[in-house]
Amino acid sequence: MPSLLLLNGPNLNLLGSRQTDVYGTATLSEIEDQSRAHAESLGADLTALQSNHEGVLVEAIHAARNIHHGIILNAGAYTHTSVALRDAISSVELPVVELHLSNIHAREHFRQTSHIAPVAIGQICGFGPVGYKLAIDALLSHIGGKA
Amino acid sequence: MPSLLLLNGPNLNLLGSRQTDVYGTATLSEIEDQSRAHAESLGADLTALQSNHEGVLVEAIHAARNIHHGIILNAGAYTHTSVALRDAISSVELPVVELHLSNIHAREHFRQTSHIAPVAIGQICGFGPVGYKLAIDALLSHIGGKA
Amino acid sequence: MPSLLLLNGPNLNLLGSRQTDVYGTATLSEIEDQSRAHAESLGADLTALQSNHEGVLVEAIHAARNIHHGIILNAGAYTHTSVALRDAISSVELPVVELHLSNIHAREHFRQTSHIAPVAIGQICGFGPVGYKLAIDALLSHIGGKA
Amino acid sequence: MPSLLLLNGPNLNLLGSRQTDVYGTATLSEIEDQSRAHAESLGADLTALQSNHEGVLVEAIHAARNIHHGIILNAGAYTHTSVALRDAISSVELPVVELHLSNIHAREHFRQTSHIAPVAIGQICGFGPVGYKLAIDALLSHIGGKA
Amino acid sequence: MPSLLLLNGPNLNLLGSRQTDVYGTATLSEIEDQSRAHAESLGADLTALQSNHEGVLVEAIHAARNIHHGIILNAGAYTHTSVALRDAISSVELPVVELHLSNIHAREHFRQTSHIAPVAIGQICGFGPVGYKLAIDALLSHIGGKA
Amino acid sequence: MPSLLLLNGPNLNLLGSRQTDVYGTATLSEIEDQSRAHAESLGADLTALQSNHEGVLVEAIHAARNIHHGIILNAGAYTHTSVALRDAISSVELPVVELHLSNIHAREHFRQTSHIAPVAIGQICGFGPVGYKLAIDALLSHIGGKA
Amino acid sequence: MPSLLLLNGPNLNLLGSRQTDVYGTATLSEIEDQSRAHAESLGADLTALQSNHEGVLVEAIHAARNIHHGIILNAGAYTHTSVALRDAISSVELPVVELHLSNIHAREHFRQTSHIAPVAIGQICGFGPVGYKLAIDALLSHIGGKA
Amino acid sequence: MPSLLLLNGPNLNLLGSRQTDVYGTATLSEIEDQSRAHAESLGADLTALQSNHEGVLVEAIHAARNIHHGIILNAGAYTHTSVALRDAISSVELPVVELHLSNIHAREHFRQTSHIAPVAIGQICGFGPVGYKLAIDALLSHIGGKA
Amino acid sequence: MPSLLLLNGPNLNLLGSRQTDVYGTATLSEIEDQSRAHAESLGADLTALQSNHEGVLVEAIHAARNIHHGIILNAGAYTHTSVALRDAISSVELPVVELHLSNIHAREHFRQTSHIAPVAIGQICGFGPVGYKLAIDALLSHIGGKA
Amino acid sequence: MPSLLLLNGPNLNLLGSRQTDVYGTATLSEIEDQSRAHAESLGADLTALQSNHEGVLVEAIHAARNIHHGIILNAGAYTHTSVALRDAISSVELPVVELHLSNIHAREHFRQTSHIAPVAIGQICGFGPVGYKLAIDALLSHIGGKA
Amino acid sequence: MPSLLLLNGPNLNLLGSRQTDVYGTATLSEIEDQSRAHAESLGADLTALQSNHEGVLVEAIHAARNIHHGIILNAGAYTHTSVALRDAISSVELPVVELHLSNIHAREHFRQTSHIAPVAIGQICGFGPVGYKLAIDALLSHIGGKA
Amino acid sequence: MPSLLLLNGPNLNLLGSRQTDVYGTATLSEIEDQSRAHAESLGADLTALQSNHEGVLVEAIHAARNIHHGIILNAGAYTHTSVALRDAISSVELPVVELHLSNIHAREHFRQTSHIAPVAIGQICGFGPVGYKLAIDALLSHIGGKA
Repeated sequence: MPSLLLLNGPNLNLLGSRQTDVYGTATLSEIEDQSRAHAESLGADLTALQSNHEGVLVEAIHAARNIHHGIILNAGAYTHTSVALRDAISSVELPVVELHLSNIHAREHFRQTSHIAPVAIGQICGFGPVGYKLAIDALLSHIGGKA
Repeated sequence: MPSLLLLNGPNLNLLGSRQTDVYGTATLSEIEDQSRAHAESLGADLTALQSNHEGVLVEAIHAARNIHHGIILNAGAYTHTSVALRDAISSVELPVVELHLSNIHAREHFRQTSHIAPVAIGQICGFGPVGYKLAIDALLSHIGGKA
Repeated sequence: MPSLLLLNGPNLNLLGSRQTDVYGTATLSEIEDQSRAHAESLGADLTALQSNHEGVLVEAIHAARNIHHGIILNAGAYTHTSVALRDAISSVELPVVELHLSNIHAREHFRQTSHIAPVAIGQICGFGPVGYKLAIDALLSHIGGKA
Repeated sequence: MPSLLLLNGPNLNLLGSRQTDVYGTATLSEIEDQSRAHAESLGADLTALQSNHEGVLVEAIHAARNIHHGIILNAGAYTHTSVALRDAISSVELPVVELHLSNIHAREHFRQTSHIAPVAIGQICGFGPVGYKLAIDALLSHIGGKA
Repeated sequence: MPSLLLLNGPNLNLLGSRQTDVYGTATLSEIEDQSRAHAESLGADLTALQSNHEGVLVEAIHAARNIHHGIILNAGAYTHTSVALRDAISSVELPVVELHLSNIHAREHFRQTSHIAPVAIGQICGFGPVGYKLAIDALLSHIGGKA
Repeated sequence: MPSLLLLNGPNLNLLGSRQTDVYGTATLSEIEDQSRAHAESLGADLTALQSNHEGVLVEAIHAARNIHHGIILNAGAYTHTSVALRDAISSVELPVVELHLSNIHAREHFRQTSHIAPVAIGQICGFGPVGYKLAIDALLSHIGGKA
Repeated sequence: MPSLLLLNGPNLNLLGSRQTDVYGTATLSEIEDQSRAHAESLGADLTALQSNHEGVLVEAIHAARNIHHGIILNAGAYTHTSVALRDAISSVELPVVELHLSNIHAREHFRQTSHIAPVAIGQICGFGPVGYKLAIDALLSHIGGKA
Repeated sequence: MPSLLLLNGPNLNLLGSRQTDVYGTATLSEIEDQSRAHAESLGADLTALQSNHEGVLVEAIHAARNIHHGIILNAGAYTHTSVALRDAISSVELPVVELHLSNIHAREHFRQTSHIAPVAIGQICGFGPVGYKLAIDALLSHIGGKA
Repeated sequence: MPSLLLLNGPNLNLLGSRQTDVYGTATLSEIEDQSRAHAESLGADLTALQSNHEGVLVEAIHAARNIHHGIILNAGAYTHTSVALRDAISSVELPVVELHLSNIHAREHFRQTSHIAPVAIGQICGFGPVGYKLAIDALLSHIGGKA
Repeated sequence: MPSLLLLNGPNLNLLGSRQTDVYGTATLSEIEDQSRAHAESLGADLTALQSNHEGVLVEAIHAARNIHHGIILNAGAYTHTSVALRDAISSVELPVVELHLSNIHAREHFRQTSHIAPVAIGQICGFGPVGYKLAIDALLSHIGGKA
Repeated sequence: MPSLLLLNGPNLNLLGSRQTDVYGTATLSEIEDQSRAHAESLGADLTALQSNHEGVLVEAIHAARNIHHGIILNAGAYTHTSVALRDAISSVELPVVELHLSNIHAREHFRQTSHIAPVAIGQICGFGPVGYKLAIDALLSHIGGKA
Repeated sequence: MPSLLLLNGPNLNLLGSRQTDVYGTATLSEIEDQSRAHAESLGADLTALQSNHEGVLVEAIHAARNIHHGIILNAGAYTHTSVALRDAISSVELPVVELHLSNIHAREHFRQTSHIAPVAIGQICGFGPVGYKLAIDALLSHIGGKA
C-alpha cells in the first residue's frame, strides 16, 4: 500500500481565510482531509504536514525516505527562494510532484522561477484545491508505473 | 453535456515513434482514444485535432467558440514562440488547460518560457500521457465549478 | 492610379467580436470596406487580405511586387515573432506602413518589440480603426512624395 | 470648437536646416503654419509651442488643462529621457498623440524606448512633416469619438 | 536656529488637483504651510521652493550652502533621471532627506531607481503629505545629532 | 487604543554591539523601550519581537491579525530574500511600515531590492534608531487617517 | 545510393531577384539544379523542396525519415524563431547540415542565434550558392563516415 | 589554545547516504570526528554543529563571538540564498573559512554565487572531506598569522 | 582666426569650492581665463559659457553654428543623461571635443556611458584643469587639419 | 597560382591525441598534409602554421599580406577571446574562412561568440577534419569568384 | 614518487614587491622554494614555472602530460580571460588544483568568473602563500585517493 | 630629466598601411619619432616599444619600474581583453596615460569597455597621431604636478 507525504509550505496554514479571491475558501485542514480521503479511495495512505519553517520542511523530506513512496509538495514562497529544499529532494530518492494553487506562470515575474521544478517529476498549477487531487493521481500513477 | 477540444501542436503526430525516452511509447491516436474514452466516462464529449501549422491551431481555437466549453492545449514548440496562439486564446472566451508531456521547467532554458501560461487557467507538465487524463479532470472540474 | 495592399495578420478576422474593450466593435469586413472607400476617395485602389498563416502573409508580400505600390500591414502577433515577414518586406521593393489598432508601446513588454519596424517607413498605433485611414493617407503621401 | 496644442521639443527649432536627409527641408514655422491651417480646415484651433527646456514643456502641458482639448507632442530627445514629461501628461486629463518625424523604431536602440508612449493614446512616427497632419486627424477623431 | 530648505521638483505644483487617488488632496502650498509650521514648532526655519526645471533645482541646492543646514528633497520624476541633482548634492556639504509621496518601490520598475539615494542620508516614501513632517523630524534629528 | 507590533529580523539582536559605525550604539532593548514609550506617549500600545528565524517572523505576522492594528517591520536581511514574508503580509489585512536603520539604497546592489516594499504602505530608511520613532508616527498617522 | 533532401525556407523562392548584393544572382531553381547535379556526380540522389510555411517544413522533415539519409537545411528566417523545426529534427534520426547563404554571424544580432545549430551536425554560412555544394560534400562525407 | 567552530548547513546531515557520487561516502559524524582529531593534533579545540535551519546557523555564529577564534562554514544551499548568514558573519569579529565539498564553480550557474565569500577570508571547494582538513589548516594558519 | 566655444555643464560653476579632492582647487573662472589665454597664445579666440540648464546648453550649441569653428564640451552630469545634447551636436556641423575633469571610466558604472561620445571627435578625461589645454590643442589641431 | 595560409591556433597541436571523442583521431600534421594535398590537387599552394601564442598568430596574419591570397583560420580558443586577431584580419586585405572542428554553436554558451566571424567571409564548423577540405574549396571559390 | 607542476601566471613574478597589502611580502622564489620543500616532505617532487605569456603556460600544460601527475595552477589574470588555458587543461589528463592568493570572490566582479574552475578538481583562494601548501596537500590527497 | 615609456600594442606596427580611413597615414616609426622629438622639446626622454604579444607588454611595464617616470599606453585590442595588463599597471607604481587613435566610445560596443581605464590617470582618444603629443603633455604635466 503506497504511502504519500503531503507537504505544504509557508502561509498555507492561512488557506481559506486569506486572499480568497486568489486561493479559494477551502481551509488547509479541509484540503488535507479531502486529500487523505482521495488517497484512501485509491488504496493509498497520505500523511499531511504544513510548516512555515524552511528547515522543518527540509527535515520532513529527509524523514520521508524510509516511510513514504512519494511527496506532493506545495512549497509556497520557498519554491522561488529555497535551494535547500531542492537539495533535500535531490538527496532522498523519492518522486516529488510540485503543486501550486494559483497559476504561478501568470503572476509576478519572480513567481515564475522554481527551484523545485528541476528535481520534480512534474508540476501542476492553477487549479486551486482540485490540484491536490490531480497531484495524488499523478503521483500514484507514477509510482504504479514504476512498480 | 460538456464538449472539450483536445489540441496538439507541432511534432506531436510523431508520438510513440520519436524520442521515446522523453515522450513515451504511446502514439498520438492511442492518447486521443484514451482521452476520448476518459472524457466520455465523465459524461463529456471530446474532439481531438493535431496540427503542425500555427495558423491551423489559431483557427481551431477560433472555431471552438460556439462548439466547445473548454480546450486542452499541448502547443508543443509553439508554446515558446507563438504570440498568435496566446492572442487566439484571449479572443475566445473559453477556459484553456496548458499541457506538456515533459517537465518543461526541468529542460532547456528556452522551454521554460510559455506564451500560453498567462492566458491559461493552469498548467500540467511532466506526467507523460497521464497528463491528458489529469487535464480532462482539471478542465471538467473548472467548467463544473463555473456552472 | 496607385494600388495598395491592406494585409491583416492573425486573429484580426475576429475583430468586432473579440476583446471589444481593446480593439473596438468594428468588424474586419467593415474596416476593409471603409479602407477601400477611403482609398478610392483619394484616387487609389485597395485590395484587402487577412490570414492567420505566417507563410500566407509572406507570400502575399511576395505577390504584391508587380501588382501594388505599397502595403499597409497590421501583422498582429507576428509583429513580435516573425523574422520571415521582415525578410519578405526587405526582399520586395515596396513601401510598408506598420499599423496596430492598440498602442503596443503601452502594453506588455513583449509587444514593444517589432520585427517589422526596421523595414517599414513608419508606424501608426493606438487609434483603433481610425488608424487604417491614417495609414492610407500616410502611404499615399509617401508614394506621391516619391513620384 | 476644439482647441489643440502642438508641442515640439528640443532641437526641433532647427528643422529644415539640420540633418535634412533625416528630417526633411520644411522649417518648424512652415510645419506649424501648415498644422494650423490643417486644423482650421477641420474646424479646430491649434496653438504651437517649441522649447528646448524640459521644464518649459512640462509647464506648457500643465497650462493646457483649461485651454486645450488635446495635445500633439513631438518630445524629441526628451521622449527617451524624461519621466517628468510622462508625469505631466498623467497629471492633466488631456489626450496626447505622440509624434516623431523619423521612424524611431528603426534607429538606435536608445531611441526605441519612449517614456511618453504609456500615457499617450497612440503614436505616429516615420512620416516626416506629413505626420503632423496625421496626428491632427487622429487627435480630432479621438476627441470627436469621445463627444 | 536651524534653517531648512524644502525643495519640490517637477509636477508637484499640481498637488491636490492631479491624480488625487495617488497623491492626495492637499495642495502644495498647504503642504508648504504645514511644513513651515511644523518646523517652527520645533524651533526651526523652513524655506520652500518648487520648480519644474532641473537647472533651477540644481542652483537652489548650490545656493543653500551658506543659508540652510539641511534639505528636504522631493525630486519627483528627476529622482530617476537626474545625475545633475545627485552631483549638486555631492558638491554642497548639506544633509539631504529624500522624500516621496508615494511608495516608489511599489510602483513601476523605473521608479525604483533613485539617483538621489546614494548621496542622501535617508529616504522616506509612501506616507503622502505626512511624509513631509517625518522628513522634517528626521532632518532636525540628524542635524541635532551632529551638533 | 491602537496596538502596534514592532518586528525586528535577523541579526538585529546584536544592535549596539555590532558594526556600530553602520548601525549605531543603541541596543535593541533600548530601541524597543524607546519605541514603546514613544507609542504610549501617542496613546498607542506597542509589542516588540525579534527573531532570526524566517518562519517565526512569518507566524508573528499571522498572529498579529486579531491583536494589532499595524506592523513596523525591520526585516533585516530577509528584506532581500524572503518571498514568504511578503506573502505573509499580503495574507493579513494590516498596514505595514518597512523600516531600515541604514540607507539601503546607498549600499550594495543586492540590498536595493526589497520583497517587502510592494506590500508595505511606505518605507523609512537611513535614520538609525530615530527611524523607529518616525515609523511609529507614520503608522499611527496612517491608522488614524483610516479611522 | 544515398538520398539527400535539400530544404529551403521562407523567402528563398525569391533568390536571384531579391537583395542581390546580399544573396547573389542565382535563382533558387538554378541552385537546386546545380545541387542535384553535384549530388549525382558524387553518386547521390537529391530532392529539393522550398516552402514559406513553418508547418510544411516541419512535415517535410517528418516525411524524410523513411526516404532520405540526410538533410541540408537552409531554414532562412525560421532559423532564428522556430523551435518547431528544431524539435522536428530531434524527432527524426537523420543528420542535418545547417546552411546559410550569408554570414549570419556578421549580421544583425538576432540573426546570430540559431535554433537549428544545437541539433545539426555542423553549420556552413557566408559562401553564397557555393555553400550548397559544400553542404552536400559535408553531408555525404558524414554519411559515408558512418557507413 | 585556539578554539574553532565547525558549522555545517542544510542537508549535510545526510552526508554519506546521499548522492555519494557527488559528496562521497563519509558520514557527517565521521567528518566531524576526523576534523576534531585533526584540530587537536594541531593543538586546537574544535566544536561541530550542523543545522538545516538558517536561524539556528545565524545564532550559532552570534554565539561564537566569545567562545571561538574562528569558524569553518560549509553553509550548503544557504551559501547561495542567505544574506542573513552574511550579515551574521559581518557582525561578529571572527575569521571565517568558506568550505564546500564539491567544486561549486563547476556546477549549476546558481551555485556560483556566494553570499558568504565577500565576508570570508578565503574559500576551499572541490576536495570532498579532505577540504575540512585544509580548512582547519588554513584557519589556524590565519589565526596564528594574526597572533 | 579660429573661434572656439568652451561650454561647461551643470555643477561646474562650483569648481574649486566643491569636492576638491576629485576636481581640484582651480575655480571655473580661473580655468576659463587660462583657456582663453591658451587659445589666444595659439592664435585663436575662445568664448566661455557655463549653465546648469540642459536647454540653455542645447541652445548655446545651436547658436554656435555661425559664430564658432568648434566646441569644447564638458557636459558634466548631462553627459550621461542627455540625448538632447547629443542631438544638438548632430544638428550643427561643428567639431566637438568631449572633456571631463575626472577619469569617468574609473568611476561609478553610470558615469561610463556617454551620450556625447558617439557624436564627438574625441574624448579627454582624467587630467583635471590641464585637460582644458589639451582639448584646445586637440580641437585646433583638428580644425587646422581640416583647413 | 593561388597561395593559401592555413593557420591553426592554441591546443590544436594536440589533435589526434586529445579528446578524440570531440576532435577525432587525425593528428595536426596529417590534417596539414591532407590540406596541402587537397589544395595542390586544385592548383593552389598551401602553407600551414600552428601556434599557441596569440601574438604569433597576429603576426602570421600580418606577414600573409604580400605572400598569400587568403587564409583559413581555426583560431581555437582565441576565437572567443581575441580582439587582436580580429583587428589583424581587418588590417590586412585578405579573405579569411573561419573554421572549427566541432559545432561551436551546439557547445557551451561562451563558444558561441566569435570575434572572428564579423571580419570573415564565412564560417564552417562541426565537420571535423573534413572541414579543412571544405574551407579550402570555399576559399578558392571565393578567390576565383573575385578574379 | 608523485611529480607535481607548480604553474604561476602573469605578474606573479613581482610577488613580494607589488601590492604587498593584497599579496603579501613573500617573493615568488621563496614561495617556490617552500612549495618544493613542502612537497618533498610529503614524498613528492615539484617543478615550478612562471610565465607572463598565455602561450607559454598553454605549452607547459601540454608538456606536463608525460612528466607530472598533477598541476597546481595560479593563472593570475588569465583565470578570467583565457579559454585557451581551459582547453589546454581539458586536453591533458591531469588533475589541476586552481589557486589564488587573494579571495577572488570578494574582489571586483570580473575576478569572480574563472575559465579554469569548470575543468579543475577544486579551488583554493584567499589564504595568501599558505594556499600553496594547501594546494599541494589537496593535490597529493587527490592523486593518492586515485591510486 | 623625466623619462617616459611609449608602449604600443597589437597591430599598431601596421599603422600607416592599414585602414587609413580610421587610423591615418602616419607610420608607427614616424609617430614614435615625433613623440620622441616632442618629449625632448619639453625636456624629457622617451623610449618607444611596440609588441603584438600580451606577455611582452606585461613585462615591458614591469621593467619600466626602475627606469621610467610614466607610461603612455596604446594597448590596442588588448585594452578590451587583457586583465593581465591591468594587473601589471597596478603592480608598478607609475602613472599611465591611456591612449587610442580612434574614438573608441563611438565604435563597436565591445570597444567601449577598457580594462586599462580603472588603473590609468586619464584617457585620450579620437585625435589620431595628435593624441600622442597630447598624451606626452598630459603625462609630463601630471609628473610635474607631483613633483
